[in-house]
Amino acid sequence: MTGRYQSPALDAVEIRDSFWVPRLKTNDLVSLDHQYDHLQANGSLDNFRRVVGEAGGEFEGPPFIDANVYKWVEAASYALATDEMPTLREKVNTVCSLIEQAQADDGYLFTYFMLGDNAGRWSNFTMMHELYCAGHLIEAAVAHSRALDDDRLLRVARDLADHIDERFGPDTQEKIPGHEEIELALVRLYRVTDEERYLDLAGYFIDRRGRDPSPLAAELPELERMIERDSLSTEQKESGWSVVGYQDTLRDESGAYDGLWAQDHKPVREQRRVEGHAVRAGNLYAAVAAYLQEVDDEELFTAIKRLWQNMVTRRMYVTGGIGSSPDAEMFTEDYDLPNDDAFAETCASASAIFWSQHMFELTGAAEYVDVLERILYNALLSGVSLDGRRYCYSNPLETDEDYHRNEWYYVACCPSNLSRVLASLGKYIYARSENELLVNLYVGSTVETTVSGTGVTVEQTTDYPWDGDVTVALSPDEPTEFALGLRIPGWAERWEVTVDGEPVAVEPTDGYATLEREWHDGDRVEISLAMEPNAVVAHPEVESDRSLAALCRGPLVYCLEGVDNAQPVQHLILSDPDSISARDTDSILDGMTVLEGAATVQDLQEWQGTLYRSLGSITESATEFTAIPYFARNNRGPTSMVVWMRLA
Amino acid sequence: MTGRYQSPALDAVEIRDSFWVPRLKTNDLVSLDHQYDHLQANGSLDNFRRVVGEAGGEFEGPPFIDANVYKWVEAASYALATDEMPTLREKVNTVCSLIEQAQADDGYLFTYFMLGDNAGRWSNFTMMHELYCAGHLIEAAVAHSRALDDDRLLRVARDLADHIDERFGPDTQEKIPGHEEIELALVRLYRVTDEERYLDLAGYFIDRRGRDPSPLAAELPELERMIERDSLSTEQKESGWSVVGYQDTLRDESGAYDGLWAQDHKPVREQRRVEGHAVRAGNLYAAVAAYLQEVDDEELFTAIKRLWQNMVTRRMYVTGGIGSSPDAEMFTEDYDLPNDDAFAETCASASAIFWSQHMFELTGAAEYVDVLERILYNALLSGVSLDGRRYCYSNPLETDEDYHRNEWYYVACCPSNLSRVLASLGKYIYARSENELLVNLYVGSTVETTVSGTGVTVEQTTDYPWDGDVTVALSPDEPTEFALGLRIPGWAERWEVTVDGEPVAVEPTDGYATLEREWHDGDRVEISLAMEPNAVVAHPEVESDRSLAALCRGPLVYCLEGVDNAQPVQHLILSDPDSISARDTDSILDGMTVLEGAATVQDLQEWQGTLYRSLGSITESATEFTAIPYFARNNRGPTSMVVWMRLA
Repeated sequence: MTGRYQSPALDAVEIRDSFWVPRLKTNDLVSLDHQYDHLQANGSLDNFRRVVGEAGGEFEGPPFIDANVYKWVEAASYALATDEMPTLREKVNTVCSLIEQAQADDGYLFTYFMLGDNAGRWSNFTMMHELYCAGHLIEAAVAHSRALDDDRLLRVARDLADHIDERFGPDTQEKIPGHEEIELALVRLYRVTDEERYLDLAGYFIDRRGRDPSPLAAELPELERMIERDSLSTEQKESGWSVVGYQDTLRDESGAYDGLWAQDHKPVREQRRVEGHAVRAGNLYAAVAAYLQEVDDEELFTAIKRLWQNMVTRRMYVTGGIGSSPDAEMFTEDYDLPNDDAFAETCASASAIFWSQHMFELTGAAEYVDVLERILYNALLSGVSLDGRRYCYSNPLETDEDYHRNEWYYVACCPSNLSRVLASLGKYIYARSENELLVNLYVGSTVETTVSGTGVTVEQTTDYPWDGDVTVALSPDEPTEFALGLRIPGWAERWEVTVDGEPVAVEPTDGYATLEREWHDGDRVEISLAMEPNAVVAHPEVESDRSLAALCRGPLVYCLEGVDNAQPVQHLILSDPDSISARDTDSILDGMTVLEGAATVQDLQEWQGTLYRSLGSITESATEFTAIPYFARNNRGPTSMVVWMRLA
Repeated sequence: MTGRYQSPALDAVEIRDSFWVPRLKTNDLVSLDHQYDHLQANGSLDNFRRVVGEAGGEFEGPPFIDANVYKWVEAASYALATDEMPTLREKVNTVCSLIEQAQADDGYLFTYFMLGDNAGRWSNFTMMHELYCAGHLIEAAVAHSRALDDDRLLRVARDLADHIDERFGPDTQEKIPGHEEIELALVRLYRVTDEERYLDLAGYFIDRRGRDPSPLAAELPELERMIERDSLSTEQKESGWSVVGYQDTLRDESGAYDGLWAQDHKPVREQRRVEGHAVRAGNLYAAVAAYLQEVDDEELFTAIKRLWQNMVTRRMYVTGGIGSSPDAEMFTEDYDLPNDDAFAETCASASAIFWSQHMFELTGAAEYVDVLERILYNALLSGVSLDGRRYCYSNPLETDEDYHRNEWYYVACCPSNLSRVLASLGKYIYARSENELLVNLYVGSTVETTVSGTGVTVEQTTDYPWDGDVTVALSPDEPTEFALGLRIPGWAERWEVTVDGEPVAVEPTDGYATLEREWHDGDRVEISLAMEPNAVVAHPEVESDRSLAALCRGPLVYCLEGVDNAQPVQHLILSDPDSISARDTDSILDGMTVLEGAATVQDLQEWQGTLYRSLGSITESATEFTAIPYFARNNRGPTSMVVWMRLA
């Protein structure tokens, strides 16, 4: 069952897409620059300078702030893989030098303890996120090494990984990370180094989790003394992060250690539901899927498919967001998906994208890419403003006029996480196996790859997601037989495929229209996906969405914003689902396709001075609504917003 | 504007009603007995015995537990006003003797401090509820004196009132109660004693509230030290009450004293919204209305009408429940009326009934009785099980299968509060002024009263609330001219009146069909209120009720319980509001009129393995629903319940 599909190298894919290129440019040129300024200003880089001796003062930020630097390096490395950006490159070099110099001789690297209580090293896996930061360093190093053909950060990562591998494991100290992340990083490190120790350590961290006695449980008494001493600074508490905030997640109602929050309640292979902190869960399960691409383990494979099914059939917003609890950034219960309180953290979306991709690579099934696409175009993309300068940590499906995006956060995990997904978009468009080439995402682009031993250039042209017509032009170096698989998105109710203008009848397999033949230079495959507006309803057990519909078109989920609608968006009733039509605009949000349709609304004047009235006495007047893509929400000043529209 | 209407004395009204008599018997014979047993068992009576020296041990219960004893005496006194119940009478005598003996020589009475820290007396108005308990003693004494023609408890009450009056007021110590209650009690005490000091003290407590500096604000530092010392026993904390629970209500976000919770944020005459703890608010505003029956104050009258309008048009459940916040038993924001989280405390319903009644007595407008009736038949009556032995402290509008009634509570304010409303039902049926007799509630009963100087007996016969036909037979001692007003309930869309069989055309005034003529012995007035099932919707700003309808008939709000319906009640869609019909049953809940109708429901099998589907692909199958009166909810074992039914 080991992994069947690989992505082409990032520099083999050139994105030429009217939807994505402006967004990726904004990401590379605006967001990464803006994030760097914040890393400078908030002390993230100064923490490294302090370790090196280039800056004075005390550690700044939450203990795990190093991770934001690493994620920024990872994102910038992806961006530099395909674009020469000398200024960005110089900043990356500066940061890499700092990281390199800051590393201790024994490989250790975590500025919080290096600048403070050295004795605290490796004593608090639950909260201190040392392994989480190490994971992000490793991921950054793998990206940096692949993109820039420069191994210096990879050497730092290997030294840190070796430091960890020497200390923790079945034969040394039994430990697991409090916040998963290093597992996936170690699999990725194994892939570039071929060093099996890293894969084994990933497997150990995955499989040790949830077993009695939990290494994290042993930390509880000390952790609670720490909370009691209130040992973190006032600044941290005021800024929204302190260990005190985690107190309620440590023990269950009986007072026993509660592993649920950190997926440490039972072994992964016995878990039946995605539970706990959603980013941790997403990271862990992405790692499990990646690990299974390398190691046969039928039991773990069964478990990960079961967990996936639980997430996508009971615990995922229509936008693809996960983790509905606003209090603890966590999963709650099946079908509990409140809209205004939705947490749906941007980082959780990123982790679910990684999980989706590895599930796809493992199985070759398009259903995983369907979910990846849902998250990418909706929950994730909603996390950054159109100008690339403002973020949403959480991505609710209903907001009032007081809601706004933020320029930065004290716990600023999301901005660079989102940027690393966008900057690596090229990884998700195509996939190949020995004799197959799959088109997973419809993004205007070219790819140079090898299938059936022959070099093939593919050029994809499309106006997706605004339009469902896609042309795939093939240029094999020589006539070659291979299977070209075109993903039929789960949302597509009708579709047609032509080859060189001739309609082709093809039944989808695993979600792909697969064309197996000898391909010649100049062959053109066209797929046309019917992109009708669609009103979508949720399972009746989802209380928050009862009697409501979400408007969708293609991969996009739409929302109603007050600024486009004369009546309060929470009051608009979708009176005729067949009336919904798509309209390309120039004026709205720099030219997006909006959805419009017939609505009714109750006369608020009639309600004056009353709270309850007979249904029979209500008069509704006809009006119209305009819906914009959800990802573009909250880009035009304060306004109310709903994804789910009333059906009555 | 002083009070226009009075209730006949309780013993002048005899209730002979197929709906109410069994409930009142249960209240008198089962609930009051059962409550007495709990007062015995939980130490409430022993606290008095301890003060007297008849029992040992320490004070038991929350500090304000005396109030439950007083409310029980009040309820039992009402019951004894119309029925000889020697066993109950003996218990009342026993309790009255205990109260009498426990009172200190200086009039003070509050067992918590008498058994503990005597120095604590009158030091903590915010939390200790001394004035609240005093208020309940006074109300009990007024009821006891009127019902049983025995002034011994009234003497205790006067001594306590004098003790308070000597100490607190504009010329002595500036104080106000933390939990309002004594204001209404003092107005009532004034009415039986004609002692103006009591009315003045009520006026002082009403008007001092919300003015700077608040006497309660001065207590904050000591209160917070108390919280820090955690000075109440572990038992109290474990049992659900401690001062610690109130900590978050003491200061606003800026750290300043926050009077909102106790209606101490601004003077009543400046208040525009009902705010804070709902029972306190209801008690305060009931007292204001009662006070205005005695004292002209146009500004206060304007304020109380404004507060009433805010409550009934923005902050009241369709059941009449108030106070939607589950955390702090308080009002939240306009139109914030969550159903499953609804608090809608039974005590708040009682206080809103008192407020309604005094607003009616003050104005003579039937709109206030409409609200009283809504609360009485729904939110209040829902607070006790049909067998009279189990209670609901809160009265949510949606519950799952885990929800259940409770036999008793550590803070057991609701049971005796509910009982005192039921036992005094006779006060609310009729009202009279000099030349008018009003029928406010349709309850089978007789009343002997005096109108236009002549003795009149009225006999009302009806099957209300199951049926809208009511006969009112008049027997004046001699032919007499007076106005007979029959309330036309706000819910009645059609109605007819006949006098001696002849239809009478009459336009309602202030909500009454008023017949002014010379009445003779044997005159019969009949009113027929069309009692059609009705689907009611809420103001579009009430997010929790959007796309939903509540089924009503007459004064009753209905609900759907799982036990009566084959499909999950949260999934049932009211497909044809015209299909709703009423059916008298023998089998359901010992013979109630249920509502039935056509519903649709989605096929859960079709949803298997999916979370979101196209609206167009959904198939709904036809089914039926059965709804029972809301007050009868949760009487047949664990079952889910909803008041609001889906419209789509």
